[in-house]
Amino acid sequence: MTKPTIKDVAKMANVSISTVSRVMNSPESVIENKRNQVLAAIEKLKYKPNALARGLIYKKTNTLGVVIPDIRNPYYADIIRGMEDASKKLGYNLIICNTDRDKKRLFSYLHNFYERQVDGILYTSDPIYPDYYHELNRLKIPVMLVSTHSMEYELPSVKINDEQAAYDAVKFLIDSGHRKIGMIGFDLTDSIAGLTRYHGFIRALREHDLDECKNNIVYVNGWSYDTPDAAAKLMEKCPDVSAIFTVSDELAMGLLCYLHEQKISVPEQISVIGFDNIRLSDIMIPKLTTVAQPTYEIGYRSVEKLDAAIEGRDDPILREYLPHEIIVRASTKSLD
Amino acid sequence: MTKPTIKDVAKMANVSISTVSRVMNSPESVIENKRNQVLAAIEKLKYKPNALARGLIYKKTNTLGVVIPDIRNPYYADIIRGMEDASKKLGYNLIICNTDRDKKRLFSYLHNFYERQVDGILYTSDPIYPDYYHELNRLKIPVMLVSTHSMEYELPSVKINDEQAAYDAVKFLIDSGHRKIGMIGFDLTDSIAGLTRYHGFIRALREHDLDECKNNIVYVNGWSYDTPDAAAKLMEKCPDVSAIFTVSDELAMGLLCYLHEQKISVPEQISVIGFDNIRLSDIMIPKLTTVAQPTYEIGYRSVEKLDAAIEGRDDPILREYLPHEIIVRASTKSLD
Repeated sequence: MTKPTIKDVAKMANVSISTVSRVMNSPESVIENKRNQVLAAIEKLKYKPNALARGLIYKKTNTLGVVIPDIRNPYYADIIRGMEDASKKLGYNLIICNTDRDKKRLFSYLHNFYERQVDGILYTSDPIYPDYYHELNRLKIPVMLVSTHSMEYELPSVKINDEQAAYDAVKFLIDSGHRKIGMIGFDLTDSIAGLTRYHGFIRALREHDLDECKNNIVYVNGWSYDTPDAAAKLMEKCPDVSAIFTVSDELAMGLLCYLHEQKISVPEQISVIGFDNIRLSDIMIPKLTTVAQPTYEIGYRSVEKLDAAIEGRDDPILREYLPHEIIVRASTKSLD
Repeated sequence: MTKPTIKDVAKMANVSISTVSRVMNSPESVIENKRNQVLAAIEKLKYKPNALARGLIYKKTNTLGVVIPDIRNPYYADIIRGMEDASKKLGYNLIICNTDRDKKRLFSYLHNFYERQVDGILYTSDPIYPDYYHELNRLKIPVMLVSTHSMEYELPSVKINDEQAAYDAVKFLIDSGHRKIGMIGFDLTDSIAGLTRYHGFIRALREHDLDECKNNIVYVNGWSYDTPDAAAKLMEKCPDVSAIFTVSDELAMGLLCYLHEQKISVPEQISVIGFDNIRLSDIMIPKLTTVAQPTYEIGYRSVEKLDAAIEGRDDPILREYLPHEIIVRASTKSLD
């Protein structure tokens, strides 16, 4: 089942591996007799000089490495689709690695990318901690931050403005007449999707004299598995909320499930707004009002931008922010 | 930003690339003077002989290539988690490629796997057509079929018994007293999840004298985006069904959404059973009764089995079937 390697060619031609390599790379440096033996062996074994060999010779492997924190989260699916379409257009292959938010696993994949000489790395969604930065920097491979950014380091990025998007979601609820608003958020140690969206929530409250809502928050550290619990905690903490902002659509789905079980009807008794606009948000019960991230475009644009970096083209915008949008469906209602 | 290549080393040491390669592979074949120049350049540039070079010399790259048909489908997420955990245990890295069920894209990734000399390929979920088989065969790389199999070709595989699982789902409905049963199925051209589950449905009907239900079927060619339409068609075709079997949980989610909009209550008026037991099935409204596939185990076992093939260990079972299970939640009720 194994295919012929350079070793097999060397053995059949009765020469050293480096001679085979020289025949492929600089045939003029090998005497004719040996060269013919090697070529005959290559022919006979149908040995094919491959991308590995070419990667050694040319600088490009036409491959981009993608690290994502959790393949189970459907949010990444559309980003990856965007990355793939741009990669196809620009002649790259994508290799996707799932880090499970595990630092060891991340570093192991980064090391693997280095060894495989990927042309660039798409680092998705997680914050850049100092040791991550040093590791990425050490590799000397162009990096693009996708759906994350870094204010500390000079790394290019593509994402939405999370603070503004959360602000807009909460302002939408306020503009719909809600005055008692709660939030299920990501832990504040998550500087990308946790702290920023919290800030947006707080700013919307403050600008509308609703500071009394600022403690109506429950934090989760993961995704929807925790949601029914988080929802229960939130309803215990502030049973009189008329609207809840959740920082992901999966959290919203868990919340809808919990409220349904408690016989609290959405949106009649409580309005729910999600975040992301994953595909399934359109078949939830009720259909989910949410903040649409341009996920496909984030993926697509990040590959275009990374390609520019790889090719050394000028890219005037270091940290790029794409527009978000409120999608109004059936899970929210106006109190006015 | 680019890291030093063998070319840079050659240039700095003022020797040919093949000489650098010989210094790394068989230093004794290079005269001391030149050898020292090369070693000094390697040291100075911090050039690191890499996986590509090693892949040329050793037979193993410790990398497995995964092709999946649609990364947006959450069914694959748990399979990949299983694959990753087994890969970690056995010392492999996974590179994941999304084919979008596009033959050209699939072949391009297979070719890429060949060029990168992956140790094995995990071919997930799609049927093996003759031209696919010939392409796979031509690569001479061990292949494992995951959540698919082939009766025509001698390829190892890991999946559930789809016909039996569908039979068990429908029998569960029949045992709960349902006599008017409908189905939303995958197109019969899909020999893995379409035809087999159709056969299971038909067998359960026949064994229980319910042949009159055998045309209560609507087929979809994709996933839940089509479901509200498919659900509407099914309800028009056979408005008196008391239970519906859908061949995926996402299809079930779309069906639940449609029935909710039509004010048909589940399970009071219609019972719904899904297939797969994706993570979200536990937070649907109502929580979904479904056929659990051991997705994580399928992924895990497929890597173990592929590793055995790569290492040439004996594996007595060519086509391996893992057990499925009916998970009873709130979307079905007994009529008795």
